[in-house]
Amino acid sequence: MNLRKIEHLGIAVKDLEASKKLFAALLGTTCYKEEEVASEHVKTAFFGTGESKVELLQATSPQSPIGKFIEKKGEGIHHIAFDVADIDAEITRLKAEGFQFISETPKDGADNKRIVFLHPKSTNGILVELCQERK
Amino acid sequence: MNLRKIEHLGIAVKDLEASKKLFAALLGTTCYKEEEVASEHVKTAFFGTGESKVELLQATSPQSPIGKFIEKKGEGIHHIAFDVADIDAEITRLKAEGFQFISETPKDGADNKRIVFLHPKSTNGILVELCQERK
Repeated sequence: MNLRKIEHLGIAVKDLEASKKLFAALLGTTCYKEEEVASEHVKTAFFGTGESKVELLQATSPQSPIGKFIEKKGEGIHHIAFDVADIDAEITRLKAEGFQFISETPKDGADNKRIVFLHPKSTNGILVELCQERK
Repeated sequence: MNLRKIEHLGIAVKDLEASKKLFAALLGTTCYKEEEVASEHVKTAFFGTGESKVELLQATSPQSPIGKFIEKKGEGIHHIAFDVADIDAEITRLKAEGFQFISETPKDGADNKRIVFLHPKSTNGILVELCQERK
């Protein structure tokens, strides 16, 4: 498989502190990292489950995509991220398969990753992220 | 952790054949199993990614929860399922933590599992499934 595992699930929340408590109780584990990604206008909190992560996302400004998502759809799953070995090769492969990207240039994401998003129109309504560990 | 891994992501689709092709191309792997769950009024198709699965769900009748979901929200992520060692113990633990369940009695799911769903009202808008491998 080219998308090697679910790297994380991104979950849009209104109140990071409240949702951190909720997911710690739900998963039966504690938040192991928090990080603010200024470029994306979000605060994030990470939990581990198996080889995957749950990433809670709270908007830090009105122009944050997460704030707009919650306004439109409410809290819930915002995106699913898959781990890839070579993000540039995957962009080329998936474009050839007819998939559309929101931007075709990988950018820096949380958790030391290079990331890119496919457009939900080409992926059954799901916002799919590809991410590669930065070397 | 009590929820040991993402067992699968359940994705509501309108046309299982079309979405099977889409996810095979996206993930770079092939569908390894199809199964109809008559009690849930769905046809399902499974893909592997790391230790998790992607489960596509198409309604087979108008009263299917998947059909109603698509009517209301469109295609997309319907639920997230976590693997647990002891589903009965987890129901007791999570009830004590204040979580609400759609039904507190596990039922038979696809893929040889005992399953139960938490109510999205108590889990940040996300339909969370717990599943335990049937012995």
